[in-house]
Amino acid sequence: MTRRRKIYEGKAKILYEGPEPGTIIQYFKDDATAFNAQKKGTISGKGVINNRISEYVFTRLSHIGIPTHFVRRLNMREQLVKQVEIVPIEVVVRNVAAGSLTKRLGIEEGTPLPHTLLEYCYKDDALGDPLIAEEHIACFGWASQEEMQDISAMAIRINDFMSGMFAAINIRLIDFKLEFGRLFDGDFSRIILADEISPDGCRLWDMDSGEKLDKDRFRRDLGGEVEAYQEVARRLGLLPEEGDSAVLDLGEHRAKKGK
Amino acid sequence: MTRRRKIYEGKAKILYEGPEPGTIIQYFKDDATAFNAQKKGTISGKGVINNRISEYVFTRLSHIGIPTHFVRRLNMREQLVKQVEIVPIEVVVRNVAAGSLTKRLGIEEGTPLPHTLLEYCYKDDALGDPLIAEEHIACFGWASQEEMQDISAMAIRINDFMSGMFAAINIRLIDFKLEFGRLFDGDFSRIILADEISPDGCRLWDMDSGEKLDKDRFRRDLGGEVEAYQEVARRLGLLPEEGDSAVLDLGEHRAKKGK
Ligand SMILES: Nc1ncnc2c1ncn2[C@@H]1O[C@H](COP(=O)(O)OP(=O)(O)O)[C@@H](O)[C@H]1O
Ligand SMILES: Nc1ncnc2c1ncn2[C@@H]1O[C@H](COP(=O)(O)OP(=O)(O)O)[C@@H](O)[C@H]1O
Ligand SMILES: [Mg+2]
Ligand SMILES: [Mg+2]
Repeated sequence: MTRRRKIYEGKAKILYEGPEPGTIIQYFKDDATAFNAQKKGTISGKGVINNRISEYVFTRLSHIGIPTHFVRRLNMREQLVKQVEIVPIEVVVRNVAAGSLTKRLGIEEGTPLPHTLLEYCYKDDALGDPLIAEEHIACFGWASQEEMQDISAMAIRINDFMSGMFAAINIRLIDFKLEFGRLFDGDFSRIILADEISPDGCRLWDMDSGEKLDKDRFRRDLGGEVEAYQEVARRLGLLPEEGDSAVLDLGEHRAKKGK
Repeated sequence: MTRRRKIYEGKAKILYEGPEPGTIIQYFKDDATAFNAQKKGTISGKGVINNRISEYVFTRLSHIGIPTHFVRRLNMREQLVKQVEIVPIEVVVRNVAAGSLTKRLGIEEGTPLPHTLLEYCYKDDALGDPLIAEEHIACFGWASQEEMQDISAMAIRINDFMSGMFAAINIRLIDFKLEFGRLFDGDFSRIILADEISPDGCRLWDMDSGEKLDKDRFRRDLGGEVEAYQEVARRLGLLPEEGDSAVLDLGEHRAKKGK
């Protein structure tokens, strides 16, 4: 196995230098954290499922014209992506009140919002990813106004697409988090969707039972985390047959070639 | 003394029904609170000084075309104002990092901001006046987009004017809080400046010594609260002579006529 340079190890993924300049490999771990990493654990098999779900969603989004960092999935836990300069802003898209919003503004969980709400948080673990407004982004130069226009327009389109996609499999898209990055071409850069889209960063409720099919199972010690993630993958058609667990083979399945 | 109906008692002021419909009387108390009313105390004489300073600033602001609720000062502790429907948003204007911003974004107190920063908080004591963005204001209908345009434009003008006013008396305007309200005229309403502007809601630092001349003296137990407020009033020319304390006679000086 060839040694690859590790670029960064985060809470849920590891980034390695990619095979060509301008590419990186995202390796999906089973590690789970919540409440700004105060709670830590492992969801065995999560990395495999998230790699697969994120591939699926990013591919579908590119088909409606959303530019993304995704190049191709390499193996069970890894995907090749274009390296970007991450915009230090977490974009949270909310359709229904849940999570921090309920406490912050005193709104009961499950209350549909009057309309879709975009929230921005400053991506800084040490500060607990504090809520910010466009005024902070402009003041500290975290993104230009043109970039924020692209980001907000894409976030709204992604929400519409994903709401439809999940509705089709009887899942209500409550909220989700996005990260964007700058893809450089010489001196110029444009904004593309980066990071991942998976049950780690989405709230997904079964439309009939209201059952949570996302990381809130871990946050709230509800149990059945991996089964919930698996259920989302299954409904998306990513597990060919019910009971088939090929994609969920939980060991370290690195592609052998090129290593 | 005629009985007046008390409309509201807040942390720093009491509102009474005014002599004509559409007017109210703001009575300035000596009560001081900090950290969302977790800390409580009294700054003896504060109400008298704030009534006077707020009269001064609102009058000056009206001269540059900022519409305000201020009608006239009635006596040492009371002023007549136009009744408005308060927009439930606290507008914080920041020139230099201080207070909650330093903790929230990890910026050292005293750091000049790259440019003036407008922050909005949802005015709700029970929730601790949480930071919000224009997205929340639009989502929950707390103000219309036109109203927010008026509010932000006025806040910026007020900052420019007050920065100049305080600079002239060797005081650096670090940040301050504003409240706006809707003045109704039949079915129509327009936004005017309401509440108060005083050392209770401003951070004011002496330009040479850096000494704090505002409510941070109370928040941080620095002592000399009333002397600091008095010093601001004195520099604004509201105490005719150094040592003159007429305006600071701290008893209950209600105007006798009409009561
Ligand atoms: N295409 C990309 N190029 C560079 N960095 C990326 C890209 N996509 C995602 N990232 C960053 O890689 C990290 C992914 O690892 P993760 O475990 O999610 O980290 P974190 O703990 O910071 O959330 C994140 O910091 C994310 O911003
Ligand atoms: N012109 C006005 N008409 C109606 N309400 C006002 C007006 N000006 C200020 N207010 C409100 O009156 C109250 C002033 O009292 P204060 O002690 O500051 O209250 P609080 O504890 O809510 O800050 C505030 O709630 C403020 O929003
Ligand atoms: Mg992450
Ligand atoms: Mg007040």
